[in-house]
Amino acid sequence: MHTLTKQPTSFLDAITGPAELKQLSAEDLQKLAGEIRQEIVSSLSRTGGHLASNLGVVEITLALHRVFNTPQDQILWDVGHQAYVHKMLTGRRHKFDTLRQFKGLSGFVTPIESEHDAFVAGHSSTSVSLAVGMAIARDHLQQYHKVVAVIGDGGLTGGMALEAINHLGHIQKNVLIVLNDNEMSISENTGGLALYMKRIKETFFYRDIKEKLDSIEGSLDKVQLNAGIWDMILEVKKQAKERFDTPGIVFEKLGINYSGPIDGHDVNAVIEAFEAVKDKSAPQIVHLITCKGKGYQPAEDDSIKYHGVPAFSLEPQLSEKVDASPAKPKPKTYSDIFTQALIDVAQEEPNLVAITPATAEGSGLVKFGKAYPERFFDVAICEQHAVTMAAGMAKAGLKPVVSIYSTFLQRAMDQVIHDVAILNLPVVFGIDRGGLVEDGETHQGVFDIAFLRSVPNFTVLAPKDAQELRDMVFTAVKESKGPVAIRFPRDKAVGATIIGDTGETQSSKPRLIDPTAWEILQPGKTAKEGRKPAVILAYGAMVDAARQSLELIESDEKPILVNARSAKPLDLNMLSGFVRDGYDTFITVEEGCLSGGFGAAVLEWMSTSGQEIADGLPRVFPMAIPDQFVEHGARAILLDLNGLSKEKLAERIKKIVSR
Amino acid sequence: MHTLTKQPTSFLDAITGPAELKQLSAEDLQKLAGEIRQEIVSSLSRTGGHLASNLGVVEITLALHRVFNTPQDQILWDVGHQAYVHKMLTGRRHKFDTLRQFKGLSGFVTPIESEHDAFVAGHSSTSVSLAVGMAIARDHLQQYHKVVAVIGDGGLTGGMALEAINHLGHIQKNVLIVLNDNEMSISENTGGLALYMKRIKETFFYRDIKEKLDSIEGSLDKVQLNAGIWDMILEVKKQAKERFDTPGIVFEKLGINYSGPIDGHDVNAVIEAFEAVKDKSAPQIVHLITCKGKGYQPAEDDSIKYHGVPAFSLEPQLSEKVDASPAKPKPKTYSDIFTQALIDVAQEEPNLVAITPATAEGSGLVKFGKAYPERFFDVAICEQHAVTMAAGMAKAGLKPVVSIYSTFLQRAMDQVIHDVAILNLPVVFGIDRGGLVEDGETHQGVFDIAFLRSVPNFTVLAPKDAQELRDMVFTAVKESKGPVAIRFPRDKAVGATIIGDTGETQSSKPRLIDPTAWEILQPGKTAKEGRKPAVILAYGAMVDAARQSLELIESDEKPILVNARSAKPLDLNMLSGFVRDGYDTFITVEEGCLSGGFGAAVLEWMSTSGQEIADGLPRVFPMAIPDQFVEHGARAILLDLNGLSKEKLAERIKKIVSR
Repeated sequence: MHTLTKQPTSFLDAITGPAELKQLSAEDLQKLAGEIRQEIVSSLSRTGGHLASNLGVVEITLALHRVFNTPQDQILWDVGHQAYVHKMLTGRRHKFDTLRQFKGLSGFVTPIESEHDAFVAGHSSTSVSLAVGMAIARDHLQQYHKVVAVIGDGGLTGGMALEAINHLGHIQKNVLIVLNDNEMSISENTGGLALYMKRIKETFFYRDIKEKLDSIEGSLDKVQLNAGIWDMILEVKKQAKERFDTPGIVFEKLGINYSGPIDGHDVNAVIEAFEAVKDKSAPQIVHLITCKGKGYQPAEDDSIKYHGVPAFSLEPQLSEKVDASPAKPKPKTYSDIFTQALIDVAQEEPNLVAITPATAEGSGLVKFGKAYPERFFDVAICEQHAVTMAAGMAKAGLKPVVSIYSTFLQRAMDQVIHDVAILNLPVVFGIDRGGLVEDGETHQGVFDIAFLRSVPNFTVLAPKDAQELRDMVFTAVKESKGPVAIRFPRDKAVGATIIGDTGETQSSKPRLIDPTAWEILQPGKTAKEGRKPAVILAYGAMVDAARQSLELIESDEKPILVNARSAKPLDLNMLSGFVRDGYDTFITVEEGCLSGGFGAAVLEWMSTSGQEIADGLPRVFPMAIPDQFVEHGARAILLDLNGLSKEKLAERIKKIVSR
Repeated sequence: MHTLTKQPTSFLDAITGPAELKQLSAEDLQKLAGEIRQEIVSSLSRTGGHLASNLGVVEITLALHRVFNTPQDQILWDVGHQAYVHKMLTGRRHKFDTLRQFKGLSGFVTPIESEHDAFVAGHSSTSVSLAVGMAIARDHLQQYHKVVAVIGDGGLTGGMALEAINHLGHIQKNVLIVLNDNEMSISENTGGLALYMKRIKETFFYRDIKEKLDSIEGSLDKVQLNAGIWDMILEVKKQAKERFDTPGIVFEKLGINYSGPIDGHDVNAVIEAFEAVKDKSAPQIVHLITCKGKGYQPAEDDSIKYHGVPAFSLEPQLSEKVDASPAKPKPKTYSDIFTQALIDVAQEEPNLVAITPATAEGSGLVKFGKAYPERFFDVAICEQHAVTMAAGMAKAGLKPVVSIYSTFLQRAMDQVIHDVAILNLPVVFGIDRGGLVEDGETHQGVFDIAFLRSVPNFTVLAPKDAQELRDMVFTAVKESKGPVAIRFPRDKAVGATIIGDTGETQSSKPRLIDPTAWEILQPGKTAKEGRKPAVILAYGAMVDAARQSLELIESDEKPILVNARSAKPLDLNMLSGFVRDGYDTFITVEEGCLSGGFGAAVLEWMSTSGQEIADGLPRVFPMAIPDQFVEHGARAILLDLNGLSKEKLAERIKKIVSR
């Protein structure tokens, strides 16, 4: 499967940096584009990565590096995951086998990796704001380089990009926006703007004008007119059509000069378009039409599936299939379990609706959308709108569930506070990717516990396994009177047993539980008379890690293991019971930032309720992610790095227990 | 000053609810509008409040309640501070004397106060998202009421509103957007969209078409044509003009049907406009042109000054001036000190730029804008864009300072993490309104310490007084290598001495300090041999409160008072020194949420560094704002309510010290 026949890559081999591109003819550039595609497909078949979006920007990237000069000129890649070609052309081709691996090439852009990366980007819709800031800086410092933002039509749905375009139209700085329009973000694109761009051919006003002019022409047929007048009438019709046949008018009304649409796979046309605007001093937008997955048939056909891919076997035309047997069914992820739970609950709850900000694929919610298309809302890359819309729905009597990645929830913290929590509305948040993820710094889901815990009225849950996730979803939708967050990591779900070879997961009926009541999973033992064992309060996915760590500990001392499934509220019955009974050592374990997290919650409770106690508070040892950004790499590696693998936990627990 | 001659208000007196409006003639409604204006001016002259914006929406509010039926129909007031007229018409007129007072009428809308308030609103740009959510709910539940979002042109600059409009254009729900266009948000409005709306009269494309058609007409003059053809040509010209003379085209392109612009002070015209669209099933936008401060000359002339006013003396035409002597110079606020510090530092630092998201007035930054117009950026209500633009500026070599209210920073948490902190960029955040404010739940600035503390690379400072704020700004701009937040409350600055009667504040030259080193301000004393006094670690504005509380304590025991000006990093030198020396009681005091705040930081450090210590950790008693939303009222009252007034602090400290 990994023995791809090496194709000749004579042009690509000759490229050591962007400078060499300047020498190539248009024809050679188009050949180079083919070689790059070949290399991307072959490379990602081994490492996984964002396939379709990168195949879509090959010619755009070549044209950018042909016309502009990095690192002097600043190219800002929105989202950053479509910059693989850019990486290949800027000296990182030989590192592609380490893509997204620990200590390997990042899957996103970052100036730490290369001076050709103008900024860090992992989240969407930031590039225009960055470009505006950099253009202001350039002018203030009397420099003369170009600032280019490369943004997709998906990125343009993000409110922040619209704020930035609005501001750019006002201050009229020299910024080039390259709009890579493939009519979809990660999921299918949504919104009036997207529809608008698709409506190129059917502008009602143009039809009005055209009908009227046709009618005038008809009447004029009856009289004698010279050719000049006919030409003029045709010219009016042509101009009206041109102005209305393109999306340009909205941007031009906002003060951004528009050119396009242009075929984004015609490298020569793209170069010409960039050359035509590069010396203009007013803001410009160049609208390029591309095809996600261009040049690789399976990805062209299903660009959503091939958006981000794990290592895959090359399909027909690019490889022989070494292994023809069907792939083994994979264990279900927490995302799968969450979606299935929603589908199940939706059967009983006709007012349940599900909302996603363009992550229907990653979160598995596509399946919900197929089951209940009328109750499924993909709002595009609009986290703020998603949350406040859900608040409106809850106020008006629906049971909205917002599925959102932990890292993207950061975009909607004000909406969580101001629109959901103040009125204590029953919005359920399914917080996916809660914890460490392979994508790196920009995507780590480590702040949600601390953030949400500080918001009044919130319940902040995390399940220990698949069944508990089902139960939590069921209970939250059925019973919650206020906002509930349920967070889970990007990983296989513990306890999701595969049945046979169909890939189906065994799952019992979801039950109503008391999700804020903690459970004692394993009793502890002590060697010394009168001394109580330590108590491990493990949260969410860390319950299983802690359980495994205890198996590694050979000792007469063994802590009690508690499934502390609610970080807010704490189970004060259980906690104060322990304290009253003389338990004096608590260990909290969570896959989130130490600062303000679940451990801090226990500490805060000890110290405040402790104001009533004379002296000698129990000791609390929080185990969490220290105060630093966490790089990319497999979750297991990152957990170990942060002291949260079963081995590291065992070591740390042993030390505390034996003190 | 408060003895306003009571004007006759015969129409207003007769209104007990919206139903009575349905009986009034257009003429009477216009008279009622006059009475309402009179009452608002008179009432706010006593209580203070949002004057200009409410004077601007009198007719719109009358028309809304005339055409729609609350509480069945849902009217969503964006921002909520322009809903005073709505409150008067929905049974709350008699409570206006308690406006924004503790336990009095809220300054914003909230369903807790009245069933006529469809939702809570204090922050901008949420209404369209809420309307979309409520319209989806209505249709799903097979209800038939109307959903109306009332949003200003300022609110429309917020990315979230643009996200919502984009989505609404896509799903085509029955929502009416009432655009109240007064060409400004709190500060002057900014952005391509605002410019676009102003450009109504100068559409280039229409001019093109018109010239061409004129030229055709000219040629046609020479031949004989029947009148029908001429009519048709005129009709084409008229339609082209209509379509291009209005801002409608941008909205229509996005899928929202547009009507307007309409004079928003002609109550009859507004009623007609609402009647014309109210039974349409597709989304509609009605564009109303209004004048902030309408009908009260001083407010019309300076609507920014009269945006939110403290109680004021009525100006010429509405009152006799009781007290003609000039008002006493007021002590400077922290906002004033912050701005002055920026202006002073900007003299030495040519690359310092200041950024505000539409709060130039409230933050005092207008003065900076006057001093350095080229280095001042008001980006409109775009917190996200403001922060990421600043990140771009910092990366490109400027020294950006973002002035932002604590509550609005919640809109930009992802940008703080993803765009500023990951690259450790030297962006300075001046966090105004950090702490309790009179506006209530929606505006409390209580989450910033906890939020920012959890973000790696951040330094989180708070000054104890005016001079320290100056020093912090100076030091942060000059020396910081990464992001620095400096937070201060909305209040008079401690130590800002007024010189003479000019209102000028004595301020020494700002100094470079080590802002992360805490200072011992007062030594403590103990009664018992060998026992160490308690240590108060007070943060920011709470230093002065704690100092005053200690003056109230008559005891042989007195805690040490520390100015703990950096919540992150903690001064570990001082802290571990105390612990080493046997100090065993610490009290943290902060004007922020308990959960994850400064007190939690000290607790976390004790417990983690404590993993090295055998036993008997010092006790930490955190004093902070408990886990609940805080209502509106004077800051002093709210501090007391939350146990942070000097009296309450004294009580609590005494109890701990004497335990």
